[in-house]
Amino acid sequence: MAAKKTSSPIKIPGFVFSGISCGIKANVQKDLALIYSEVPARAVGVFTTNRVKAAPVLQGQAALKNGKLRAIVANSGNANAVTGPEGLKSAQKTATAAAQALGVASEDVLVSSTGKIGVILPVKKILNGLNAAIFSLGPNHADDAAAAIMTTDQFPKIAVARGKIRGKSYRIMGIAKGAGMIEPNMATMLAYILTDLDLSLPIMKSTFKRVVAETFNAISVDGDMSTNDTALLWANGTSDCRLVNRRSPGYAGFESRLRQVCQDLALMMVRDGEGATKVVSIEVHGAKSDASARRLAFAVARSSLVKTSFFGEDPNWGRVLSALGYSGETFDPAKVDISYGGVPLLRRGRPTSEAQQAKAHRAMQKPEFTVKIHLGGGKGQARVFASDLTYEYVRINAEYST
Amino acid sequence: MAAKKTSSPIKIPGFVFSGISCGIKANVQKDLALIYSEVPARAVGVFTTNRVKAAPVLQGQAALKNGKLRAIVANSGNANAVTGPEGLKSAQKTATAAAQALGVASEDVLVSSTGKIGVILPVKKILNGLNAAIFSLGPNHADDAAAAIMTTDQFPKIAVARGKIRGKSYRIMGIAKGAGMIEPNMATMLAYILTDLDLSLPIMKSTFKRVVAETFNAISVDGDMSTNDTALLWANGTSDCRLVNRRSPGYAGFESRLRQVCQDLALMMVRDGEGATKVVSIEVHGAKSDASARRLAFAVARSSLVKTSFFGEDPNWGRVLSALGYSGETFDPAKVDISYGGVPLLRRGRPTSEAQQAKAHRAMQKPEFTVKIHLGGGKGQARVFASDLTYEYVRINAEYST
Repeated sequence: MAAKKTSSPIKIPGFVFSGISCGIKANVQKDLALIYSEVPARAVGVFTTNRVKAAPVLQGQAALKNGKLRAIVANSGNANAVTGPEGLKSAQKTATAAAQALGVASEDVLVSSTGKIGVILPVKKILNGLNAAIFSLGPNHADDAAAAIMTTDQFPKIAVARGKIRGKSYRIMGIAKGAGMIEPNMATMLAYILTDLDLSLPIMKSTFKRVVAETFNAISVDGDMSTNDTALLWANGTSDCRLVNRRSPGYAGFESRLRQVCQDLALMMVRDGEGATKVVSIEVHGAKSDASARRLAFAVARSSLVKTSFFGEDPNWGRVLSALGYSGETFDPAKVDISYGGVPLLRRGRPTSEAQQAKAHRAMQKPEFTVKIHLGGGKGQARVFASDLTYEYVRINAEYST
Repeated sequence: MAAKKTSSPIKIPGFVFSGISCGIKANVQKDLALIYSEVPARAVGVFTTNRVKAAPVLQGQAALKNGKLRAIVANSGNANAVTGPEGLKSAQKTATAAAQALGVASEDVLVSSTGKIGVILPVKKILNGLNAAIFSLGPNHADDAAAAIMTTDQFPKIAVARGKIRGKSYRIMGIAKGAGMIEPNMATMLAYILTDLDLSLPIMKSTFKRVVAETFNAISVDGDMSTNDTALLWANGTSDCRLVNRRSPGYAGFESRLRQVCQDLALMMVRDGEGATKVVSIEVHGAKSDASARRLAFAVARSSLVKTSFFGEDPNWGRVLSALGYSGETFDPAKVDISYGGVPLLRRGRPTSEAQQAKAHRAMQKPEFTVKIHLGGGKGQARVFASDLTYEYVRINAEYST
C-alpha cells in the first residue's frame, strides 16, 4: 500500500525514459534527461514563486497552459536563469527540436534546467544530445533520467506506489532532484510525478496543489528558494482507471498514494540536503489556525541556531521557543509544551528535569526524530521537515563557484 | 567629531562603573556589571519584540515606565529566560537589593541578564556579589562593565563621542555586548548608551527609536532574535548642555553623534558575530519605498547561501538575485544592477564579464566590503550589515550546551 523506494528498474505503462551525457557537466556525467509519454497525456504544474524565474520556468508555464504534455527535456549543470531573451530562446529551441524529433507538437514539450545561474546555456550541446537521448529511450531507464537531473544531490530520487480501483491496478512514479536551496514554495527542486491513471484536469489541479503544499512545500533545508523549481503531475491514462472528481470511487486511495510518493521524494530531498546529517520533523499543535501553525513551524525549521543545535544533538528547546517567539504569531509562552523524540523538555512553559535533557540528547542521536510543540491554544496544526546546519553545508556552499 | 573606539579608560561625568566575578561563569570570569548615575537621570529603552520575553526584560520595561534610572545591574552566564514567576522574582530581588545598597528607589534600578536560557538564575550569587560590585565602582571602569556582560563575544564593546553645544562640551558613551543571535529588532544584545547631556524625555524617545532602527536593527548575524535584548539611552544632565526638542540648537549634532556611537557598536557586533570573518554592507537602492528596500536587504542579509558565499569570497550575485526574488517584494528583474565592492556583476538584469567576476572576487578578500543593489524602480533605499556564515559559526552553535 505505502510507496516504495527502489533502485531496481521500475516501469510505468506508456512512459519511456533516458538519461545521457551531452557535455554540459564535466567528466561525461549524465546531464540530459528525456521522459516521453507514448500516448497523449494531461499534465499540471506548480512552479517557483520566486520573482526571478528562469527561462525554462517561463517556457514550462506556457507549455502547460493547454493541460497537455508529451515530453520533458531536462538538463542539469546549467539553470538557464538570468540569461535574458537569449535564455528563453534557448528553452524554446530545445522544445521545438525535441518536438520535431519525437513527432509531437512543440507546445507539448516541457523544458527544465537546473544548475548554475547566470551562465549562458550551451544549447547546442543539448540540441546535439537530443538524438542520443531519444535513441536511449526505454521503459526501464527511469533511474538514468533521475541521475541526469542531479546537481549537488548525493543520490537519485525515485518513489513509486501502486493502487487498485475496482480490481484494476494503476501506478504512480515520482522522479525528483533537489539538495540545496530547498524551501517551501519550491526550491532548486524538480519533481515529475507520472501516473497511468486517467485523470480529469480539474482533479489533477486541485489534488496536486493540496499535496504539494503538504509535502514539497513543507520542507526546509536552507530557507532559500530557487528560480527554477518545477513540480508536475502527468497522467497518460494507459491504465483502465479513471477519476473524474473527488467523489469518483478510488479517489481517496489515489490522493493518499500520491501524497505518499511526494512525501517520500520530499524526505529524500531533506535527507540529501547539502551536508545534512539529520531529518527533523517539526510538529506544531494547538495554534490558532493551521496557517499560523505552519508559520510557527517554519520559524523553527529555518532558525540557524535551531539547525546547528540539531547537528550538535543538543536538545536546546530554548532556541526553539525563541524562534516561536519571533515568528510574529501570537501564543501564550506559559502554555507551551516542547518535546524532543517524545521526551518532554518544556511543560506549560516550565523546563523539566536535567534527566529529561540527557534522555532527549540520546533521542537526537538518531538520524531522524521529531520535535513536537504544543501551544495549548487553538486547534491549528502543521508539520514541516528540516535538515540540520553542518560544517559540510558551509563547505559545499562556500566552495561552490559562480 | 566621529566616534572613537577605545580600550583605554574613558570617563563620562556623573557615571561610575564596575565589573566583577560573582561566580555564575566558571573560572572567575567577570559576570556582574554595575553602572550607577551619581545624580538622578532619565532613561528610555527599546526591548526585544520576541513574544517570549525574559524576566529581566519585563522588569526593565516596568522600571523605565517613569523615565527615570539610577542604576543598571547586568549579569552574564544566565539569561533568566523561561524561568517562570521565580525568574521574575529573582530580577525584582536583584533590583531591590541593589537599590537598598545604593540608597535609591528600587524602581530606578534596571536589571539585565544574558546567557543560557531556561536555567534558574543563581540569584544568591548576584545578591552576594552586589557589595563587591558597589565597592569597585569607579569612573574609569567602563571596560570592566563591558567585559562583565560578554557571553560568546570575543572582545568588549565600547564606543564614545564628544560634542559641543554653544561652547560647552558633552559626551556619549556606549557599552554593548552581542555576538550570536543578532538580528534586527534586537537579538542577544545589550546596549547601554550613556550621556551627560540634559535631554527631555520626548526627545530621548523619538531620537533613540529612530537611531536604533537605523543601527542596531539594521544588522543580521544569524537571523535569530533573542528573548533578552535591551538597548537604552540614559542621560544624567551633568553637562551644561540641554536639548528640549529637535529645534534646540545643537540637536542635529547630537543625533549624528548618537547614531555614530550606536553604528560603531552595531558594527562591532557584526564583526564579532559568531565565527564571522566578513562584515558586508548590503545597500538597496531604487526600491518602491524605504520599507520595501529594507525587506529586500534583509532577505539578502539572511540568506544562508549568500552568507556562505561571502565566507567563500565567491561573487555569487545569482544567490543575491534569487534572495531578492523570494523576498515577497515586487521589482523588475530586467532592471536590476548588482555590484560587489564597486565591481558591476549584473547590469540591467544581465551578467557582466568573467573578468569582472575575478575582480569582484578580489574585492571580497577584504574583511569589509559592500554589495550594492539597484532595482531601477522607485526612490526607496536601505542599508543593512551582515556577517558571513562560517565553519566557526556551526562549531560554536553546535557545541553550545543547553
